[in-house]
Amino acid sequence: MKKFLLIALVAILTNGCGVSERINIGKQGVFTVGGTVIHKEGIYDNSKFIAWDKQNETGQSYHADHAFVNYQIPVNANKFPLYFIHGYGGSGVCWEMTPDGRDGFSTLMLRKRYATYVMDLPGRGRAGRTTAENIVKPMADEMFWFDIWRIGLWPDFNEGVQFPRNPEYITQFFRELTPDLSNHNLDIPAINALADKIGGGILVTHSAAGYPGWKAAIHNNNIKGIAAYEPGGYVFPENEMPDPMESLTGTLSGIPVKMEDFKKLTQIPIVIYFGDYIPEEPSRNLGSENWRVRLQMARKFVETINKHNGKATIIELPKIGVYGNTHFLMQDLNSDVIADLLDKWLKENNLK
Amino acid sequence: MKKFLLIALVAILTNGCGVSERINIGKQGVFTVGGTVIHKEGIYDNSKFIAWDKQNETGQSYHADHAFVNYQIPVNANKFPLYFIHGYGGSGVCWEMTPDGRDGFSTLMLRKRYATYVMDLPGRGRAGRTTAENIVKPMADEMFWFDIWRIGLWPDFNEGVQFPRNPEYITQFFRELTPDLSNHNLDIPAINALADKIGGGILVTHSAAGYPGWKAAIHNNNIKGIAAYEPGGYVFPENEMPDPMESLTGTLSGIPVKMEDFKKLTQIPIVIYFGDYIPEEPSRNLGSENWRVRLQMARKFVETINKHNGKATIIELPKIGVYGNTHFLMQDLNSDVIADLLDKWLKENNLK
Repeated sequence: MKKFLLIALVAILTNGCGVSERINIGKQGVFTVGGTVIHKEGIYDNSKFIAWDKQNETGQSYHADHAFVNYQIPVNANKFPLYFIHGYGGSGVCWEMTPDGRDGFSTLMLRKRYATYVMDLPGRGRAGRTTAENIVKPMADEMFWFDIWRIGLWPDFNEGVQFPRNPEYITQFFRELTPDLSNHNLDIPAINALADKIGGGILVTHSAAGYPGWKAAIHNNNIKGIAAYEPGGYVFPENEMPDPMESLTGTLSGIPVKMEDFKKLTQIPIVIYFGDYIPEEPSRNLGSENWRVRLQMARKFVETINKHNGKATIIELPKIGVYGNTHFLMQDLNSDVIADLLDKWLKENNLK
Repeated sequence: MKKFLLIALVAILTNGCGVSERINIGKQGVFTVGGTVIHKEGIYDNSKFIAWDKQNETGQSYHADHAFVNYQIPVNANKFPLYFIHGYGGSGVCWEMTPDGRDGFSTLMLRKRYATYVMDLPGRGRAGRTTAENIVKPMADEMFWFDIWRIGLWPDFNEGVQFPRNPEYITQFFRELTPDLSNHNLDIPAINALADKIGGGILVTHSAAGYPGWKAAIHNNNIKGIAAYEPGGYVFPENEMPDPMESLTGTLSGIPVKMEDFKKLTQIPIVIYFGDYIPEEPSRNLGSENWRVRLQMARKFVETINKHNGKATIIELPKIGVYGNTHFLMQDLNSDVIADLLDKWLKENNLK
């Protein structure tokens, strides 16, 4: 009997209380970072009601240009949290959902005990108040994004694509698109503000957040590593610039930075992931074209970092036998594989 | 020894594995509900790239007017989930955060084992794509909201107010404001879409979501109860309309519905909560005025429901010894008390 009870006790304790599927959250919440405030001069007059959507602005304030952050800290969290920064066209939801209801990517990493901080960049999602003026109106563009993001060539899906083909799921995916109400120069300050508030962490960027990610890391010692998913842009030392690369979606040029700044990127581990359906040769396919030049410039970027004694890696998923990934790797059907790869890289680089 | 092990085993099992502070999540994620889609006629042309923010819309689609929903289902969830619907001026963050970093209200209820579904109504937060056209520009209005929501009379706080006075926390609160990009007629369909997707649940509304909440519940048997925090509007049987009530922020009128529809609201438990700083008599204070008439009409609403054999309750918190609550009771310093009261009401009404 004694032996039985002892075994039962040990089993329970080592099994994390018996259910491996659950996520044990210690703390979670939402906060804002970055931003500015406009103060209108004069004395505030609260003697008259005008309308719910019209104000006498005199003497009032308006906070703007901040980012929103959703965070979850698991029990026994790993050493560094993950700072998730989304790309163009959407919001932080890309990290928090999949079109067909599987765990979002941040949830996958939470299950591996990473604290997760998912940002809505200024002007996106909940971070709606900005200093910019915008006219917002419907513009039908979903087929364009379906193509650009290499899900297929509308209405056809890429062969073997890791995207759920049910129309309801495609609908869920398209609805992740949301307006950008910002003036577009706020991403680097927002990333810095998050890293400064929370401290040492790993930047996980997608697409257009790639370039702001490099810039933030150059100046912010709180960024201990970067995992960039199909980044949209790259920095280079001003004297080691690659040739611009032409594609059907425009010219891709490296962004010059001072050598001493570029060298900051040699001091932290960096990994770049690219998915499938990216040919080496030019074509008429806009999705292929956009990412062809970005993949090729990514290789040069990694080469340049390592030439200066850095620790950068580029993982071209088809080359390691992982096929079918679109631009939205974190939501693809094999996102668990993508998460496992990230976890492995973090461990190997002493970032876990 | 045997006795010791047995005691240890029981202690661990009954203590939920030893740490009462953790939240055990079984499943969490994000999805969209409701909405529509615009299809532009013609054949989609993907042969040319125009610009990232300009499209040839021919043959393309645009999903719009949907709502976003963040959900978390704890292990051993209670019988009914809570559907959180935010009010005017903000997004679902009002349920997920507090200005000073305490647990958000949905987290408090999650700790009590309620599954939580927090909506961004169409046109708000992540649900940015709508069929409306909007000009969005800065408008300094934060002092107005500080007053309307009864935090105080800017720059003075109400005496004993349950709001954290640190300027950084006030900043966090103001940043919850975010534009509404919708055409304003989408809230009832969104609530219905959520309740239809998930099934039986309790509607928890704030402020301007109060009226859509009553309307959704009239037609949707999936809404098993309603907890309304300082609702902005009320329905009445068309032959039992109260007199309109004048206030400095406008005339408050009941919304007429057919008797057979109103009777639906007598079939589910309903509770309405109001906070502090709401006088019985008219004044020059816009915050006092706006909620004076709404509190008084709420009493008539509850009376009318119960006159028809309903199960409605109104809780005026100062009358039960809970002082200092603003319009944002769910974020106030005593939000844990507010959560306990809701939990108690749910239990008492067999909704837990």
